[in-house]
Amino acid sequence: MERVLSGMRPTGKTHLGHLHGVLRNWRDLQDRYECFYFVADWHALTSEYKEPEVIKESISEMVIDWLAVGLDPERSTLFIQSWVKEHAELHLLFSMITPLGWLERNPTYKEQQEELKGKDLGTYGFLGYPVLQAADILIYKAQYVPVGKDQLPHLELTREIARRFNYLYGEVFPEPQALLTEAPHIPGIDGKKMSKSYNNAIYLSDPPEVIAQKISVMFTDPQRGRRTDPGRPELCPVFALHRLHSSQEKQREIEVECRRAGIGCVDCKRVLTENLLRDMAPLQQRRADFAQRLRDVREILQEGSRRAREIASRTMEEVRRAMSVDW
Amino acid sequence: MERVLSGMRPTGKTHLGHLHGVLRNWRDLQDRYECFYFVADWHALTSEYKEPEVIKESISEMVIDWLAVGLDPERSTLFIQSWVKEHAELHLLFSMITPLGWLERNPTYKEQQEELKGKDLGTYGFLGYPVLQAADILIYKAQYVPVGKDQLPHLELTREIARRFNYLYGEVFPEPQALLTEAPHIPGIDGKKMSKSYNNAIYLSDPPEVIAQKISVMFTDPQRGRRTDPGRPELCPVFALHRLHSSQEKQREIEVECRRAGIGCVDCKRVLTENLLRDMAPLQQRRADFAQRLRDVREILQEGSRRAREIASRTMEEVRRAMSVDW
Repeated sequence: MERVLSGMRPTGKTHLGHLHGVLRNWRDLQDRYECFYFVADWHALTSEYKEPEVIKESISEMVIDWLAVGLDPERSTLFIQSWVKEHAELHLLFSMITPLGWLERNPTYKEQQEELKGKDLGTYGFLGYPVLQAADILIYKAQYVPVGKDQLPHLELTREIARRFNYLYGEVFPEPQALLTEAPHIPGIDGKKMSKSYNNAIYLSDPPEVIAQKISVMFTDPQRGRRTDPGRPELCPVFALHRLHSSQEKQREIEVECRRAGIGCVDCKRVLTENLLRDMAPLQQRRADFAQRLRDVREILQEGSRRAREIASRTMEEVRRAMSVDW
Repeated sequence: MERVLSGMRPTGKTHLGHLHGVLRNWRDLQDRYECFYFVADWHALTSEYKEPEVIKESISEMVIDWLAVGLDPERSTLFIQSWVKEHAELHLLFSMITPLGWLERNPTYKEQQEELKGKDLGTYGFLGYPVLQAADILIYKAQYVPVGKDQLPHLELTREIARRFNYLYGEVFPEPQALLTEAPHIPGIDGKKMSKSYNNAIYLSDPPEVIAQKISVMFTDPQRGRRTDPGRPELCPVFALHRLHSSQEKQREIEVECRRAGIGCVDCKRVLTENLLRDMAPLQQRRADFAQRLRDVREILQEGSRRAREIASRTMEEVRRAMSVDW
C-alpha cells in the first residue's frame, strides 16, 4: 500500500475549519493508503516559541479530536514529531545541502511572515521550516502528501531537496506527490476565514449551547439588514455552513427562501444549529469518551511513535551510508 | 572540576599548525579541567558536503593523532559529534529562537565564504554553523572553550543564544567563557599560513624523509638570494619553526648568524630538520602504535560518545522541560 504523510501543528483547539479542511480527508485516506499522521510540535515552535505552553496543552486535545473524527490507530500511525528524534538529525543533514536561496524565495515564507506579523518570525528556524518539513516527509519515503494549493510551493521544496540529495549521494528518496485536496470555504462567525487568531472559530470541543450561541451572532449577508430584505446565500457565512451540514434538499429550500425573504436569518440559523449539532453529536460523544481515557491516548501515541521510529531509523541508516557519515 | 569543550573538523590530515595551534593546548588543559574533545563530523559537512568521503577517511587518522599527542581517554572524553544525536535536537530547538540577523551579521560567516570561495557555501546549514556550535558547547554546560581571537565572535553568539534561552525559558545554561589561546604563527613551506588548502603543510603522519624534503624546499627570507646576503629571521618561515622546535640557545645562535650571513639556509634547515624529527619521533612512534590498534581507537570513541550522551541526554531533559516540549 502506498504511503501518505501529513502533520498538524498543535497550536490551539481544533475547529470546523480543521474538520472539513483536513481531518475528514485524513480519515477517508485511511481506506486507500498506509497513513502516517503526526503532531508537528517542533513546527509549532517556529511561531509559538515565546509561549510554548500552548503546544503542550494542545497536543492531547488535538489527538482526542483526531480519534473522535475517526482516525484509526489500528490502520494509521499516529505519532508525535519530537518523539522521533531522527527528524532532527535528517533536518540537520538536509540543512547542509539546501541552498539559502531556495528558502528565501519560498513564497509561503513571505506570506506567513505577513500573516503572523504580531510574532517575532525572523528566526533561523522559521526560515528553515521547509527543511524540517522535507525531513518529516522523506524520512518515511512517503509517496503522497495531502496538501492545499497554497502549500504546493512547500512540497515542491521537499521534492527539490530529495532530488538534490539523490543527485549528490545516490538514489535514496522517492519524490512525494501532492494529493490535492480542495479545501471548502469555511467562514468563521464574522465571515472571515475561520481561524483561532481571528477569534471567530467554532471548536469541536464547544458545548452545544456555546455552538448555538456562536451561530446566533454569526454574520449574514450585510445587505439583509431587515427581515424583509432579500438575501444572497452565496455571500452568507451561515449558508456556507449549511452546505456542509444540511441536506441537499434543505439547502435548496433555504437558498430559494432566502433570496425572496421567505425565511429570516433567525430561523435559518436555527435550522443550521440543529443540523450542525446533530452532525457533531456522535463526534462529541467519542470526544468525551477519549477524554476519559487519556492514558490510552498516550499509549496510542507511544505505539505510533515507536512504529514511526522503526522506519525513520532504517531510513537514517541508508542516509548515513549514502553520505558516508557512518564511520 | 570545571569543564572545557572543543572540537575539530575531520577534513584532512593533522599538520604542525594543528599540533602547535590546538592539540598541545588541548593536552595541557587536561591537567586543569574536565575536557570534552569531539570530532566535528557534522560541522565538516558544511564545507565538504559534495565529497563527504574525506570526512570518513579523516576521522580515524585524526583521532590517532590526538592520542599520539597525548590526549588521554582516561581523563578526557573523546567522542564523535554525529554519535550523540542530542546535538541535532538541541540545534533544532535553538534554531527556533535564534534571530537570522545574528547569523547574517556574524563576521566569520562572511570571512569563511570568502576563504572557501571554491566551495558552494550558500547553504542553510553553513549560515547556521554557529547554532550547531552553540548546541555542541551548551549541551555539556561547558564553562570554558579554548579559542583563538578570530573565533571570539562565534563564542559570543553561543553566549547570546544561552542568554536568550535562559531569558525565554528560565536558567538552564551557563555562559561559557573563552580560554584565549595565543596561536603561534605557523607558516607552511611556502611561507603562507599552514593549511591543507594551500598544499603547504607538514603532516604529523609524514615520514621523516618527506618532512626533510619539505623543509629543504621551504621558502626563506626572499632578500637572502645568495649565501652571502644577510637574512631577517623574523620574516623567515624556517626560523618560525625553529622557535617551536629548537632550544632557546640554538635559536639565539641562528638568529645572530643569519643576520650576518654566518650560517647559510641549507645548514639552518638541516638543524631544523634534526630538531623537528627529534621532537616528532616519540609522537610518530605512538602514532604508529595506535594505527595498529584501530579497534581500540574505535572503542575509545564509543566509550567517550557513551559518556557524552549520558550528559547530553540529561541536559536535553532539562531543556524539554523548560521549553514545555515534554508531553
